[in-house]
Amino acid sequence: MKSKLTIIKIGGKIISNNNLLEKYIKKITSFSGNIVLVHGGGNIANEYFKENNYSIKIIDGRRVTDKKTLEKLVMLYAGLINKNIISKLSSSEKKYIGLSGIDSKVIISEKRKIKKIDYGYVGDIKKIDGDFIKLLIKNKTFPVFCPITANKNGELLNTNADTIATMIAIEMAKHFQVDLIYFFDKPGVLINGSTIKKINKIKFLKYVKNNEIKDGMIPKIQNSLEAIRCGVKKVLIGDINIFENPNNCTEVCLN
Amino acid sequence: MKSKLTIIKIGGKIISNNNLLEKYIKKITSFSGNIVLVHGGGNIANEYFKENNYSIKIIDGRRVTDKKTLEKLVMLYAGLINKNIISKLSSSEKKYIGLSGIDSKVIISEKRKIKKIDYGYVGDIKKIDGDFIKLLIKNKTFPVFCPITANKNGELLNTNADTIATMIAIEMAKHFQVDLIYFFDKPGVLINGSTIKKINKIKFLKYVKNNEIKDGMIPKIQNSLEAIRCGVKKVLIGDINIFENPNNCTEVCLN
Repeated sequence: MKSKLTIIKIGGKIISNNNLLEKYIKKITSFSGNIVLVHGGGNIANEYFKENNYSIKIIDGRRVTDKKTLEKLVMLYAGLINKNIISKLSSSEKKYIGLSGIDSKVIISEKRKIKKIDYGYVGDIKKIDGDFIKLLIKNKTFPVFCPITANKNGELLNTNADTIATMIAIEMAKHFQVDLIYFFDKPGVLINGSTIKKINKIKFLKYVKNNEIKDGMIPKIQNSLEAIRCGVKKVLIGDINIFENPNNCTEVCLN
Repeated sequence: MKSKLTIIKIGGKIISNNNLLEKYIKKITSFSGNIVLVHGGGNIANEYFKENNYSIKIIDGRRVTDKKTLEKLVMLYAGLINKNIISKLSSSEKKYIGLSGIDSKVIISEKRKIKKIDYGYVGDIKKIDGDFIKLLIKNKTFPVFCPITANKNGELLNTNADTIATMIAIEMAKHFQVDLIYFFDKPGVLINGSTIKKINKIKFLKYVKNNEIKDGMIPKIQNSLEAIRCGVKKVLIGDINIFENPNNCTEVCLN
């Protein structure tokens, strides 16, 4: 039987709130199983840009990552945020290692092709080196990924953290029995103000059609459905209460 | 017989000059043996502070690392500089992994005790996990260290890159036949304008007494002598020409 592995994505609203982040860190370090973490950082980046009067280009509500913006994101994601999280995790007995996709070429991505809009230095994941992640876990050093990857020529690319978590979960499902948890600032997928216990593709499409699920929740659930379809055992969306009670959240199911 | 390992420290003046850095990277990636890199970044940090009108506290000509300065150094060293170097290295076929001391707790340091002056969040190295470095090398992913470490509670500390290179070389000498190279912007240790071929402790003390070796070169040679004394096979100080001709530099010798 495969051993268990839990992939946890921690959302930007959690890591930009120091008290909340520390609560999550405490739960994560006391979790006894194998773990891989993935963090975002968009909120912190936006605050940083505002504080430093750095104007970013936005098209259709989405940030365009030009060369200078990428440089700042690398500083924030791979430097400040990643090491801050590793620092907090490392007050425990356990070992964690901060990674961006370029480290050991663990995630190879491709610069997004220009269709209608050129989003700049943004990467779409092509390949994940599951053997290297497995090697680290076997040696009891748990990876913590920041949302920076690189193409096969070593060109750094800004990459969606939800997608990184999803793709790692799918790759690691070849080696482990994988649970994937998306932590964010709400107790789960909310429909008319209440958390729904379960969601599958049919329900999801219905909710989207009725405009009850929208914005960032759409790609998050699309990622979740893809993970479940590709061999990930369980996908949960919610907040810190999942640690106490895994029913207190939304489970994304195949059927 | 032990296999060979080359530890290379790349100085701040090299990495702050993009053309020069690329020349070194080309040589390093074409080097066929096992390698560990350590980089500084003080020059880039000073430029960044100047550009951003960030005033740093200096006592006796040395920067004091307060909490805010440390935060910026983590962004620059572990983020921008480390990933920029990994990016350039990764255009080759080989794999490199960026590390700070806190990653996998590979370097444990201690906050420098306050004697006359409080230099702030500065670390002195206490322990290096040679087995983890060996594991990475065995898997053909070569570590690239930035000058940030942490104490055993996970508190991040600014740490001298020369010392990191020296201590790693000493630790790895238990497992490998280690050469240690300090690359900087001069062809070696200069006395009256010419590179000396060899230096040992007696000559070093004489040069220091005569004020012919001074400033940053003093701790660099002290580090080198310590490395040689503790089992490192060869220590060289010089510039890129070492790759072509290892006689074109200064060798630090036991006797």
